[in-house]
Parts: sequence; C-alpha cells; structure tokens
Amino acid sequence: MAINDAALIERFRKVRARSESLCAPLQIEDYCIQAMPDVSPPKWHLAHVTWFFETFILVPYVKRYRRLREEYAHLFNSYYETAGTFFPRPQRGMLSRPTVDEVYRYRSHVDDALLELLAHPPDEHAADIRERVRLGIEHEIQHQELLLMDTRYNFSINPLQPVYRNIEVPITAAPAQAMGWQEFAGGVVEIGHGGNAFAYDNERPRHRTLLQAFRLGTRLVTNAEYLAFIDDGGYGRVDLWLSDAWRTVDEQHWQAPLYWFKEGRDWKHFDLTGAHALRPDEPVSHLSYYEADAYARWAGKRLPTEAEWEHAASTHATNGNFLDNGLYVPQPAQQTGLTQMFGDLWEWTQSAYLPYPGFKPLPGTLGEYNGKFMSNQMVLRGGCCATAQDHMRASYRNFFRAADRWMFSGLRLAEDMP
Amino acid sequence: MAINDAALIERFRKVRARSESLCAPLQIEDYCIQAMPDVSPPKWHLAHVTWFFETFILVPYVKRYRRLREEYAHLFNSYYETAGTFFPRPQRGMLSRPTVDEVYRYRSHVDDALLELLAHPPDEHAADIRERVRLGIEHEIQHQELLLMDTRYNFSINPLQPVYRNIEVPITAAPAQAMGWQEFAGGVVEIGHGGNAFAYDNERPRHRTLLQAFRLGTRLVTNAEYLAFIDDGGYGRVDLWLSDAWRTVDEQHWQAPLYWFKEGRDWKHFDLTGAHALRPDEPVSHLSYYEADAYARWAGKRLPTEAEWEHAASTHATNGNFLDNGLYVPQPAQQTGLTQMFGDLWEWTQSAYLPYPGFKPLPGTLGEYNGKFMSNQMVLRGGCCATAQDHMRASYRNFFRAADRWMFSGLRLAEDMP
Amino acid sequence: MAINDAALIERFRKVRARSESLCAPLQIEDYCIQAMPDVSPPKWHLAHVTWFFETFILVPYVKRYRRLREEYAHLFNSYYETAGTFFPRPQRGMLSRPTVDEVYRYRSHVDDALLELLAHPPDEHAADIRERVRLGIEHEIQHQELLLMDTRYNFSINPLQPVYRNIEVPITAAPAQAMGWQEFAGGVVEIGHGGNAFAYDNERPRHRTLLQAFRLGTRLVTNAEYLAFIDDGGYGRVDLWLSDAWRTVDEQHWQAPLYWFKEGRDWKHFDLTGAHALRPDEPVSHLSYYEADAYARWAGKRLPTEAEWEHAASTHATNGNFLDNGLYVPQPAQQTGLTQMFGDLWEWTQSAYLPYPGFKPLPGTLGEYNGKFMSNQMVLRGGCCATAQDHMRASYRNFFRAADRWMFSGLRLAEDMP
Amino acid sequence: MAINDAALIERFRKVRARSESLCAPLQIEDYCIQAMPDVSPPKWHLAHVTWFFETFILVPYVKRYRRLREEYAHLFNSYYETAGTFFPRPQRGMLSRPTVDEVYRYRSHVDDALLELLAHPPDEHAADIRERVRLGIEHEIQHQELLLMDTRYNFSINPLQPVYRNIEVPITAAPAQAMGWQEFAGGVVEIGHGGNAFAYDNERPRHRTLLQAFRLGTRLVTNAEYLAFIDDGGYGRVDLWLSDAWRTVDEQHWQAPLYWFKEGRDWKHFDLTGAHALRPDEPVSHLSYYEADAYARWAGKRLPTEAEWEHAASTHATNGNFLDNGLYVPQPAQQTGLTQMFGDLWEWTQSAYLPYPGFKPLPGTLGEYNGKFMSNQMVLRGGCCATAQDHMRASYRNFFRAADRWMFSGLRLAEDMP
Repeated sequence: MAINDAALIERFRKVRARSESLCAPLQIEDYCIQAMPDVSPPKWHLAHVTWFFETFILVPYVKRYRRLREEYAHLFNSYYETAGTFFPRPQRGMLSRPTVDEVYRYRSHVDDALLELLAHPPDEHAADIRERVRLGIEHEIQHQELLLMDTRYNFSINPLQPVYRNIEVPITAAPAQAMGWQEFAGGVVEIGHGGNAFAYDNERPRHRTLLQAFRLGTRLVTNAEYLAFIDDGGYGRVDLWLSDAWRTVDEQHWQAPLYWFKEGRDWKHFDLTGAHALRPDEPVSHLSYYEADAYARWAGKRLPTEAEWEHAASTHATNGNFLDNGLYVPQPAQQTGLTQMFGDLWEWTQSAYLPYPGFKPLPGTLGEYNGKFMSNQMVLRGGCCATAQDHMRASYRNFFRAADRWMFSGLRLAEDMP
Repeated sequence: MAINDAALIERFRKVRARSESLCAPLQIEDYCIQAMPDVSPPKWHLAHVTWFFETFILVPYVKRYRRLREEYAHLFNSYYETAGTFFPRPQRGMLSRPTVDEVYRYRSHVDDALLELLAHPPDEHAADIRERVRLGIEHEIQHQELLLMDTRYNFSINPLQPVYRNIEVPITAAPAQAMGWQEFAGGVVEIGHGGNAFAYDNERPRHRTLLQAFRLGTRLVTNAEYLAFIDDGGYGRVDLWLSDAWRTVDEQHWQAPLYWFKEGRDWKHFDLTGAHALRPDEPVSHLSYYEADAYARWAGKRLPTEAEWEHAASTHATNGNFLDNGLYVPQPAQQTGLTQMFGDLWEWTQSAYLPYPGFKPLPGTLGEYNGKFMSNQMVLRGGCCATAQDHMRASYRNFFRAADRWMFSGLRLAEDMP
Repeated sequence: MAINDAALIERFRKVRARSESLCAPLQIEDYCIQAMPDVSPPKWHLAHVTWFFETFILVPYVKRYRRLREEYAHLFNSYYETAGTFFPRPQRGMLSRPTVDEVYRYRSHVDDALLELLAHPPDEHAADIRERVRLGIEHEIQHQELLLMDTRYNFSINPLQPVYRNIEVPITAAPAQAMGWQEFAGGVVEIGHGGNAFAYDNERPRHRTLLQAFRLGTRLVTNAEYLAFIDDGGYGRVDLWLSDAWRTVDEQHWQAPLYWFKEGRDWKHFDLTGAHALRPDEPVSHLSYYEADAYARWAGKRLPTEAEWEHAASTHATNGNFLDNGLYVPQPAQQTGLTQMFGDLWEWTQSAYLPYPGFKPLPGTLGEYNGKFMSNQMVLRGGCCATAQDHMRASYRNFFRAADRWMFSGLRLAEDMP
Repeated sequence: MAINDAALIERFRKVRARSESLCAPLQIEDYCIQAMPDVSPPKWHLAHVTWFFETFILVPYVKRYRRLREEYAHLFNSYYETAGTFFPRPQRGMLSRPTVDEVYRYRSHVDDALLELLAHPPDEHAADIRERVRLGIEHEIQHQELLLMDTRYNFSINPLQPVYRNIEVPITAAPAQAMGWQEFAGGVVEIGHGGNAFAYDNERPRHRTLLQAFRLGTRLVTNAEYLAFIDDGGYGRVDLWLSDAWRTVDEQHWQAPLYWFKEGRDWKHFDLTGAHALRPDEPVSHLSYYEADAYARWAGKRLPTEAEWEHAASTHATNGNFLDNGLYVPQPAQQTGLTQMFGDLWEWTQSAYLPYPGFKPLPGTLGEYNGKFMSNQMVLRGGCCATAQDHMRASYRNFFRAADRWMFSGLRLAEDMP
C-alpha cells in the first residue's frame, strides 16, 4: 500500500465520519423531510454519497460486489442520466423507507467494501480507483454543506423554530472592520486550475484572461449595510432590479433576505442556532444573485467577475471561517485589508457559469458532474462557514440560479478603476 | 357521574388506544410523510384529533387548562377557519417537529385533562361536554380510517413497497357469490337520521323523498368484472366517460384502479399487506367516481342514488367486514341476497353531496365540520374495511371529489325498473 | 313539402339571420378575440353553429355535399370527441384565419346546401333531418346567448371599455317592487319534459318527485340588496361561504360581482351598453353559485332546488325580458306576485346537474350534447335577457360550474316552510 | 435646419413607412392575434413603436402635445416600469380595441406632431431630441423584425397554414458551399462600440479582451447537416444536452427545429412563404440555444463566444441577406471563405448576456431599454433576413433565453486551436 493510499483512506474515514457526526443533533424525523424541491432529506444525502462510491467504484471495480438493495441504485441516483433512472427529486421527502437505521447500514455495507478494496486495489485500476475515491470524498464534503443548508431551510418553515444545535463556541461580538478598497492593476492574468492536484473539471484548464483595473471591497457587506438598503425602500425601487429579479421579488413577496423576519419592529434572524436578533456586523447572508446585484447597484458599485475574484484570491491562503470551526455562522470581519475571501459566505460574482476556453468534462457518466449545468446559473466563489477548509481552492467554482437563496451566499462589492 | 358517562369514558379510552395501536406497525419515519396533498402524515392525524378535544372541550370548558404548546393550536387545526389560522395542508409533511414522541406526550397531556374533566364535569356544561366528547370520538374514528388510507398511499409510491403489516388473520379464498338483483318498489320513503342517537348534522333531518322502482346489484362489483371492462378497452373509449372524467383519464394517465400495476402481463395489487397478484373475487376498490360511473355505463347500468341506497340499507343490520376485523382488505361476497351493504368498501352513489331539505349545521365553529363541503363532491355510503363498525349507520353520508381514489371506494350497480 | 317544414325553414332563416344581426355592432377585430379560455371569439361561434348543421345533417344526409374546407371539420368542432379531433379550446383566439369574411362565406355555403336539402328532403331521412335541424336551431340560439356573454367579457378587460351598442330602447327607471314570498304546499309533483314538443334530452323523462312545503321570493335579488351584503363585509366573512367558495374568493380576489368596479367611492357596472353607475333596482347579475349561496346564507334563506323552481314556474307563461327585447340588460321587477321567473337572469338552484331518473342521452355523437357534462356543475333555470323567448321552457336546464360568473346569472331566494 | 436633420427626418419617414408596408399582406384579423405570450399582435407593435416616440419625445419636449387617448400610455407601454403601468403582456391579444384603423390614426397623430417638432426643434433640446429620434428609429426597426417573427409564429399554429406572402423574388437554388474553417490567432483584441456613431448602451464601452486561438466555421450550419444530427438520434441522446436543455426537450416534446414538421416520411418547413419541402442547403433556423449547443457537441465542436465572433466580424462589411432583400428566408451560402457573418440568421454564441466592463445604461427610463435584461439570456450576433441592414453592426448584441426558438436563429461552429 502506497503512502498516499494511507492518507486517502484516512481522509475517507474522516469525511465519512463527519457526515454522521453532522447528523448527531438530528431527530429521526429531521432526517426525512424536504421542505422544498431544491432541498433533500438528510438521510437522502447520507445515502446518495454512499451510492456514489458504490456506483462509480464498487460496481465497476469489485466483481463480487452486491448492492445492499437493488432499488437503491434508482432511489439514490441524483441526476446521472447515463447511470440509469432516478426517483423524482421533488418526491425525495415522500419516502419513509429505507429508514434512517437502514441508511446507516447501507453506509457500513459500502464502507466495508470500499475499505477492503482500498486495502488491496487491483493494480490495473489502482490509479482510477484512487482518483474516484478522491472525487467521492469531495462529493461527500459538498453534500455535508448541502445537509446543513437543507436542514436550516427545513427547520425555517416550522413554526416551532427547531434549533440544529445550541452553539458551544463563542460567536464574535466584536464589530466588523470598516470597509476599505483594495486596488488591482488589471492586465493579462491566469485563472483556473493547473497542475495535478485535485480540482473539478470545471476549474480547468488554467488559462489567460484580461482584466481591467478594478477595486474590491475589503470585506463582505454586513447586515447593517444591507438594512440601510431595505430602509431606503430597496425592495420597492424598480430601477434597482433586473427585470427577472423584479418579477421574482413580486411573485415571491421578497422584502428581506431569506431568513430575516420581523417581530413587531425588530428584525430577527433564523439560523442553525435558532432565531435571534439580527446581528448588525454579521455579513449579510442568504441572498439571491438578484438581491446582491440590486444592492450593488444601489451602492453605486457592482459585483466582481469570477476572474477578478480569483485573481485577487490567488495570493491568499485558504484560511477563514469554515465548517471546521463548527460555528456554521458567518462572522464579522476582524482584520483590515482584503479579508473574508475564503469561508464565511459564498460570494456572488457577475459571471455566468460557462465553460472555460478548452474545457473538457470528465469522460463517461462522471462528465455529468458539472458540465451539464452550464446554463442559466451564476458563479459564486470562496466557500462558506459550512464548507470544509480542505475542500476549498481559489479556483473553485460554485454555481446557483439567480433566484436561489438557501445556500450560504453573501456579497462583496467591486468597482471599475478609472 | 351518570352511567352513560362511564360508557362514554370507556369508549373514549378505547378509541384513543386504538389510534395508537393502529400505529404500532409504523416506523418513526412512516409517521412523518405526506406523499400527496390530500393525505396527512400519521403523526399529524394523532395530533389533530387531540387538538380537536383540546380546542372544542378543554379550552372552552376548563378554565385552568393550558395548551402543551401554543403553536399546536395553529399546527393541528385542519380547516376550522373560525377557530384561528392553520398551517398549509400541503406542507404537513414538511414538519419534522414536534417529533413522534412529542405527539404522544401531547396525547397524554390532553387525555389526562379530558379524563379529569369527565370525572367532574361542571353541571351547567355537562350535556354540551358529553355531546362534544361524543363528536370527538367519532371524529377520531374517522381519522383512524384516514390514517390507514394515507399510509397505504404513502407506501404505494415507494419502490421498496413497504408492508403495513403481515396479515395474521385468514383472507377469504372462497369465490364471490354470483351477482343477483334485488328489486325495490319505489314510492315515498323516509331517509336521513331522526331521533336522538348520535349522527352528524349532514344526515339530518329525516325527511320524505320519492323513489322510482329500482333494482340493486346484490353485491359489490369484483376485480374480475372490472378487469373485463379494462380488457374491453374501457379506459380508451370516450363514449363511456363524463367529460371531466375523460380529461382526468388523459391528464393522469389512468389505465386501471389506483393500486393496480402490471408486472409483465400480470396485474398486481398493492394494499396494506404489500404487493400480490390481483385477487379476481375481491371487490374492486380505489376507484374514482369517474371510473365507477364509466364502468356502470359500460355495463348498461347506473350507480344508485343515495336515497335508493339508504332505503335498501335501512332494513339491514350494520354488519360487515369492518376495521374491527383487523383485515383492512375487502372480502369476496359470501352470502346470497343483498350483501356487503356495510363494510368492505364505500359505495359511490350518483348523488351530489348537498344539504337535505331543512338541513341545519351545528352552531358555531363546529358548523364547519360538514356543511361547508357541500359543493363539488359526491356521496358514498356504507363504510369500509377501515371503518369502525360502531361508527356506521344507514344514514351515514361520506363524500369525496369525483376524481379521488385513495379512499376504500368501490361500486354497486343499480338500474331502473320498467 | 309539409306545412311544418315551411315553418321550420322560416325559423331556420330567422335564427341564422339573427346571429348575423347580433354581430352588426362588432368591428372585425371584435370577432377574433378570446379574453379567457371559457369564452370563444364571435367568429368561432358563427362558424361552429354552421359546422353543427354541416356535420350532423349535410355530411350524413347529402351524398354530394363537400365541406367548404376540410380543415373546418377540426377547427369548428367544439367538444364532440366521437366526431373527430378538435382544435384546443383555449387557443380559439389565436386563429386569424379563416377571416370574418370567410366565415360568412362558410355560413352561406352551408345555408344554401341546407335549404336545398330542406326543399327536397329524402323521404327515408326526412324525420331525422327535421329533428336535427330543430336541434341545430336551438343550438344556434344557445350560441347567440354565448356570443353576447362572451363579447361582454371580452370588452370588460379592455381599459377602453368598448360599448357593444348604445341602447336605443328605454331601460326601466321605475324602482323594483318590494320582495314578497309565494308559498307552495309541497307533495308529489311532476317535473321534466313530457310529450313530443322539442326539448333537450337532459329535460327528460318527465317524472314524479316529492317537494317539502317551501316559499319562493317573488322576484330576483337586486343590486341594492346585494350591496348590503357587501357593505356588511360579506366577502370577508368565512362563515358565509362554502369551503371551495372561500378558496376561490381568496385566489381570485373577489370583492363584488364580476362586472362591478369602483371609481373612488362609487360602484360602477360594466355591461353591453358600457360603464355606468350601478343601478340599485336592477337584479344583481354575474354571480357565481358561490356568491349566490353566500348571499342566501347571509340573508337567512337558501337557493331553491330545481324541482321547486320548475314546479313554481310550470303555471307561468314563458314571458319576460328576453333577447327579443333587444335590451340585453335585466330590468327591475315591475309586477307584484311571483315574477321574473323567465328572462332577465338565469337563477342559480342548489341542485347539482345530474341525470333525471330514467335519463337517456341522444343516440350517437349527439349524445355528447348534454349528458357528458353531468358532473361538477350546478343547474340554473329560467333564461335571461340574452336568451330567445321561444328557446325557453319551464323544464329547461342550464348548467355551469360553481365558480363561473360570466353568464347572465342571478338569484332568487327560497326557504322552507315550517 | 441642419443637414443631418434632413437625413434623420428622411430616415424616420422611411422606417415608419416600412412598418406599414410590412403589414400590407395582413388581413385585419392577422393584426390582432397573439399565439403565445412571447409574441405580440402586429397592431400592438405598430402602436408601441409610436408610443415610444410619443412618450420619450413628444410628451417631454412638446408642451402642448396631447396624447390621442390617455389610455394608450398604459396599453402600449411594453415594460418601462418607470414610465408608468403597463397592460399585461400575455393579454395583448385579448384587446380588440383600438382597432387597426385607430392604430393607424394614432400613428398619423404622432407622426404629424413629431415631424412638426423636427422641423422646429427647440434649441436647448435639439441634441437630445435628435438622439431620441435616432433611438426611436432603431427601436422601430427592431419591432419590424419582431413583427415578422411574430406573424410567422402566429400563422404556424393555424391548421390553415396562412401564407404571409407569395415570394416574388427568386430564392437561391444553388447548393451551399462546403464548410471550411477560418483561423484566428488570439491575443488581446478590442470589442464593443467606440466613437460617436449610434450604438446601444449595451455595446459600450469598447474594451480590450483576450482571445485564445480559435477557428470559425466559414458558413452557417445547414438543414442537411442538422438533419444528420436528428437522424443520429440527437434529440434522444441525453449525453449531448445540457441539463436544462434535456428537461425542455422532454417537456416540450422537441424532435426538430421549431417550424419543421413531418408529412409521412418527409420533412416539411413552414416559413413566411407557407409550407414546403425542407431545403437541405438552407441554413438551419429557429433553433434554441439548447439545440445549437447540442448540435455543436454532437459535431465535436462548440459555439463561438461573442468576443470571438465580433473579432472575426469586425473586418467584414455588414453585407448579407437582410430585410432589405425582401426575402425573409435565409439563403444557402454562396461564397467561399468566411461568409454569412451578417444577415441570414442570428448566430447563437456561448456567451451569457452580461454587462461589458464599464457598462453604463442610458440615464432615466431609457436605461430600461437593455440593461435590465442582463440575466438568464444568451447573446446572438450578426442579424438576420428580417433585420434591416442599416440597423446592423459588428458590435450589435442581441439576446434571447436559451429555450427561445421563434426568432430567426441559427448556428455557426467554432473550435479551439491547439
């Protein structure tokens, strides 16, 4: 067994374990629900990431492997059309079986088989297997973030306001640093992922692009700043909104970010720690692209492009307020200079999610992982307080629809330099 | 304490206990799901019937009574507009909390308070309280039937085909009796409920009506008979269907009753005992009004009116295959002469659900129990294998929309006499 | 040629001419539009009634007959499934061709062929042909009413408030007679159509039914009376509405009858003569069943059943304010005693539209004329100011869905007698 | 009067006249219909472009100007939120009034006032007025293209297959030139509109961008080439489609480009000259972005970016098969080398419609012209056979949603150079 295999196995074990520990605060009932079509029940996440290892590694590479139940191939396929049929996404919350216990048994079944395979990988496939295990690990980390996002949403529609857990670590009470501006000269720069380290296909190839000179806000926009936009009538001023945005505001009756609500005259905020008074210095979160864009227009600024963002981020270490902190809440910016580039909140860019020049999807079914979503979505960058730190890179491209708000999204301002 | 109070208390205890024993085969996960807007999660049923006792008896008549949680007033109100707001019906399956345990605690909390009240009812309200307890009991029995209907539906969409329970009592294997015809002379008859015994407001007042001479099929139509309709192309012959029916057949791709499905060339049937080969002599069940009506037209007959049905039923004892049997499956007709009038399956009539001459709804909020649904629904009669026998009467009027199929519905043919 | 043929031919000519004269006030553009799926463009009505004569008489009985264009068989079929395909109803307003001129040419083409046939009907089919011509005439009269209903609706959504025509005959300014009550003893009565005169299949057979003693309001409810219901908060009082009704009020934001609108504090009314101040003594019109039912509940009364209505109407001549008056506006009741039973406005009954005992639809495709609509609709009686007088009978059953409001519908109160 | 004013007035007159001459083949009925929400009735186009001159020039700059009817301000506003309310777009086809005659009178009313203003423009506003007239002219030219697109769609759903007009000029019968590839070296290039000539705000500012080396197909893809994709099962191969695309193919049952249909085994094509056999050498048209993208993937190529396209086009004269030809049908490519860059068909790019670096919308209400649509749309380039030649520029950015197909859209292939 090669040294890197040991590290891989160790990482596999840790990530698998973290998925389960993230579920520790859940009641059985919490595992089962789906409060809107975009979210999935936690037990589905636990099973689907398991299906991924099973389908892309055990089934092709372990001759004697038997699925625990044949029906799981269908039930826990998310959207891989070329891997077979899949159960309709909006109905995932309508399935009481398999039970949570059965899902955990399914995890063990697959873990056992996978660890056995990793202990003795067949030489001719060892490289492929390692690569796919690595992909499966990153995939599971993505679903850990989804699991937190989805649980928050599921809890948010419940009048009982369930608490995911009572925070045990202190949340920064210090005020946010004042906003400053960091300047960038522009010119031809390189973005995208090069080299052999792990990255998704959509981050490649590394390529040159031309930037005009620009400035970036040194930190994320805060709740207090966003509240000024609301108090200025921002949600009612048509001139601030894109056309699709305005229709969405109207149809969905938006008056504030997703998890804000009013009690009397006071704004409250619902997060994984429950409902509490809005914290003014916390970065504003759970915004759609439409709201981020409207705020930027109101502020006389704009959102950064993904190339600008990546260029600025590329000289920073991927440090920040990540899942590893165990807070799951973005924190007021504490440092001066360009900060919060990683962690805290995903940052909306004004770039559509499109292929890089020379993009090649992974071969076969895994080519469906990223490439087929390259229409009608916008790119977000930098990770958030529900993302694992070792999952993040400057070149990482996340993507959501412009009206989506249930992910940990925030915004950083940008502007052109004269 | 009056003697009848003891009987009432005993009945209260038994009905409450039966709701819980009906849930014994459920996993925690099964309590939580709602596979279509018409069904409710089992835990919601358990809580709602409890809310009914709390809201209509404890709150008005027990000064010191405190709701276990104030939010339950909203969460477990079904549709009583004048009793306050209610959580949106289609989202009942999106609530993980209260947990099943908490719902059982809620039941105990209310049971304790109610039994205490019944032990010492205040004189000035004793009669009202008794009447409302009686209503609450009947209400809970109705929800026991719903709980079985809904569980069957919830299970039916799951590719794992969960089994509610493995049947422990024998299902009749004997063939159904041949269909005969029972003749009724017509003339002025009385229908509806008179006297002081318990009945819903919609069964009153007893009144005279005029019947033409008619015949009734002696038993329910069977699967084998219905299959002949299917094999004759019944679902594709537009001349057999009402206009609304034909559109529904097209939009919902109906090709058979709700729980029939094909494996290869064989028809299978999914019920609370799981999936099995279609039993030809079992009464055909889970039909919409549209299908019952189309079958009757195909057979050259018609459905009975509710007055015809009640007149025919009024001389029969309310015996039959009820919930009390513990089968939850309709049985082949075993007797000659008019049979299966009670139990087995609700029988579609060709009568719209409308007020009887002189109908008066209950006063106040309880007037919403039945009366406000008197539009766009059809009447069904006789109870089914998921109805408690002591809940049933010849005058009992059940009602569903013409396209509904998830209740235990079947059909009996009728025809005019020359 | 038999004498009655001459009368039939004369009636055919007159009815065909009236359809065209009813269109005289229309601009070409007005012929083409369809402002909601329930209405049809006037030119479609003109063509469809022509298609009816062509399809059910010329095609089967005139060997050498050629359709003017084969495509019309599809384009102008309304809903006769067994007569072939039909163009989707909601898209009738999306067809600019055939032009209005071409539709008139189509009418001439069919008129010529039909009149030639009627001049020399083949002996073996003469009776059938006469019967179908008679049916076609009544059918065209029905569409004349639809044409006026639909034009009013089409005009109503236009901010320019087009006027169908400036009234040339005086509208009664006299106040309505005070409401009285006419009593009926109840007992076994006969309703439905007997004998050989023309009637639709749904009016047959004549049969006995039992009525309880009842009273009928002597005239239609007026705008002033309905306004008192509105001013009493009627549209906001949930206890007054059926459950389906309340949802409709909410979803469609009903606050008044269909064509009422407010200018400042004043209620205005839009009808075929344009917009004007609401006339208090005019019968309230363009109500849904839900609104008629809610008003009756508010007034402590109920709607009549269709049997009550027909029994009361059967001793009255079919006189009233009909299409023949050329007003197209209901008039304040001028007579004492039971009045307005015919004409002015269709009266909602609390009877669902269902088959009479012994009902037999017409054979073949024409059986689709009425019978297949016998679900989810309510019966209205008596005709209206857009109905031709010679089209009306005491036994005539009109039917609409409970939420429909664009027909000339009104209400008369009823109540039980002690 | 300045010389350029005379030229402007002359252009104004000609463009206004062309709108009307484009309507010459229409029947009154054709002016009124709207066969889907995206299209508008021709008479609405004629009125809306008139409203544009009225609202943005006459109302602000001519003190004594009176609108012909006040309601037109509402009826003919398309989407300018800050200019007042507007009639709902999907209901434009439900308005019979104003009539076509009245719309022409409206045009005259505005033309008269505008020409009078242009004859004596107030000095202090002369420059603004000229600029807005210029914008209004370009706006009307855009609607001329829409009028043809919309008429084709309106006619296409009519089983009578109306013909817009019988072509009077010959359509090229010569086969298309073979496809070649033109290479471009990449590097930093400039795109976007600079200088003072007219251009829309969304084309500005001119800016530098970096291109990788690429090749462009020398001509548009033809029907014959696209047919090979269909015959290869292209519409059924999930691996060729984006995720959103695949759902659209499924939901809308796409099996070919919009106006293709099959008669027996033969493909037919419906265009403004009616239905005829598919011409193999004609460029394939009326494709969605999804179809263009899937075809390119199937062909092992990709779509060009808008920067690539503009860079390639910038050295070409804007010659091509435009509206001015009077054909309204794309033609087989007749030249070798890079051809068909302008005219024939709009070319889908793989660029999302987003602001250029430094983009500034027009001030005030006219800022709604382009900028607010910068989300969820893709860019098309080059104009088509329904675009006026003097409306086109290399920098011109057209934009539609990825599923739209009713515009004259086609595709040109691109690929990376190694």
